[in-house]
Amino acid sequence: MAFKENYPSKLLEEAVDAISTLPGIGRRSALRLALHLLKQPQENVHHFASAVKNLRDEVKYCRTCRMIADDDICAICADRSRDHKTICVVESVRDVMSIENTGQFHGVYHVLGGIISPINGVGPSDLTIRELVERVPEADEVILALSGDVEGETTAFYIYRQIAQYGVKVSSLARGLGFGDDLEYADELTLGRSIINRQIFKP
Amino acid sequence: MAFKENYPSKLLEEAVDAISTLPGIGRRSALRLALHLLKQPQENVHHFASAVKNLRDEVKYCRTCRMIADDDICAICADRSRDHKTICVVESVRDVMSIENTGQFHGVYHVLGGIISPINGVGPSDLTIRELVERVPEADEVILALSGDVEGETTAFYIYRQIAQYGVKVSSLARGLGFGDDLEYADELTLGRSIINRQIFKP
Repeated sequence: MAFKENYPSKLLEEAVDAISTLPGIGRRSALRLALHLLKQPQENVHHFASAVKNLRDEVKYCRTCRMIADDDICAICADRSRDHKTICVVESVRDVMSIENTGQFHGVYHVLGGIISPINGVGPSDLTIRELVERVPEADEVILALSGDVEGETTAFYIYRQIAQYGVKVSSLARGLGFGDDLEYADELTLGRSIINRQIFKP
Repeated sequence: MAFKENYPSKLLEEAVDAISTLPGIGRRSALRLALHLLKQPQENVHHFASAVKNLRDEVKYCRTCRMIADDDICAICADRSRDHKTICVVESVRDVMSIENTGQFHGVYHVLGGIISPINGVGPSDLTIRELVERVPEADEVILALSGDVEGETTAFYIYRQIAQYGVKVSSLARGLGFGDDLEYADELTLGRSIINRQIFKP
């Protein structure tokens, strides 16, 4: 059934327009959410709107690893008890959170902010690869914790070629992960095991 | 898998807290949405936040039918070409939109703002039944377009007892709708047919 749109209020239509820009939320769900918000106490809705706005306006990115943070340096990079000579390279903030949840990794991270994907118009210069290369001379090991799909492999290979010259040890996650699985959906046991059993990167 | 929550940023955690108060959105989806918003242009996120805030702050309710509106009177109540002597009583704003989408009804509405539900602590005084009763002397017919479940039947029966004294014709939707179906999920053909074949309310 097509959902015809005779909104009784311009304000409602604008809210539905905005909410339906979120991934995975269609106009029908957006209408449901808008009408839900309409029934909530005004202060709750104000809190909702400012939490979203503040996140976008005030969040910072760690100057070292590009993880999101509340300061110029993230809690992990600021933690002296961690192994700063082992850098785990991931695609996204969520991947850091997934690996941290395994409790198996005690090094530091580097967040690429995406993956090389010609189809989506993402090239190496759109990612934080240059910043990674600058960190490599200080490192003993770089773990390429990227997805096992073509884009992940391509990105790993590209990074490997950029950093091999420094003689650093380069490893990748053990393929205990199902091939093509997204990192964020892996269970903690499998992902933790993949960190422990990481293997020397052989391109 | 339990999703442990080691948020890298207090701002992110607050946004996830706020987004996960929405119905049907868990903390994992909320995190996905928050990180999506973080990647959008700042002006888009500002627009999103203010669209939601403006909806809650500025939307009005029609003084006659309690439909949401941008003015003190809604577009339907302000439309002189509609039959103001036929009042269709519905639970919610979404039900008005669903019936309008059928194109089969040319009267006006009355939005109860809920349904009598002792389990959820909703009694007659929480709804706009008193306002409906005030409109009845001006009407020829009241259509009780409520769900076919126990709460809908209870509400219909309660309203019938309040308005029967005015000698107005009281009808209910034809049960072309599946019993217990929610109005908003009915297809337009069935719902339109139910409006046309509405029957005298026999409690």
